[in-house]
Amino acid sequence: MNADEQAIRELIALWHRATADGDVDTVLGLMSEDVVFLVAGQPPMSGRAAFERGLRGLLAGHRVESTHQIREIEVDGDLAYSWTELSVRVVPHAISGAAPAPHTGSALSILRKHADGRWRLVRDANLLTPEKS
Amino acid sequence: MNADEQAIRELIALWHRATADGDVDTVLGLMSEDVVFLVAGQPPMSGRAAFERGLRGLLAGHRVESTHQIREIEVDGDLAYSWTELSVRVVPHAISGAAPAPHTGSALSILRKHADGRWRLVRDANLLTPEKS
Repeated sequence: MNADEQAIRELIALWHRATADGDVDTVLGLMSEDVVFLVAGQPPMSGRAAFERGLRGLLAGHRVESTHQIREIEVDGDLAYSWTELSVRVVPHAISGAAPAPHTGSALSILRKHADGRWRLVRDANLLTPEKS
Repeated sequence: MNADEQAIRELIALWHRATADGDVDTVLGLMSEDVVFLVAGQPPMSGRAAFERGLRGLLAGHRVESTHQIREIEVDGDLAYSWTELSVRVVPHAISGAAPAPHTGSALSILRKHADGRWRLVRDANLLTPEKS
């Protein structure tokens, strides 16, 4: 595994760990300012500031538990993509009773190596749906 | 616009035109043999042969009408991605009454320039959902 692929694996692992820890600033450092998130049935969410508002709002009332399995990372020059399988559970702080079902599925992500030598997420297509019980 | 971006624009336009014409062989030539299609709520569809079975089955009873708007194409070396907004209507040959609603939304696609100098689709995340009427 080369250094770029290793760096992208560490980025993905850190993303999940920092989200679970509620460390929004760390997550924001893993994406470009002009990042775009694509989700089915919603308009594209453009920009790190929009993501930050959404994540801070979510974490005010919930914690996020997630697991990921990397299916593929391919790098060419300063451009890369990753295909991951995710399971994400959003648990209200005030929950009583059973935890909600996780959302599961694939994400296809585009990453770029920036001028500072660090890889950051630039585009993300999220295909997660509620897991059927 | 450089030659690679132009080639990818032509690939996307040809994909839609050939699909509308029912020209499956042309569509198959636009993807790699190990292509993977990701759709929400379904397992990944791996391989050109699986795509071919699905498309031939669909076109046996339907025609496909689609429009596309390219939001972005980025190329680095032999790797590229495209972000397109699509509207796809699958119309049964035997239809009576109103045509079905289109599915609309984004697709995020990964393309590779192959050894023969031609770009082909290698990964595709399809985020289309039925348009709300």
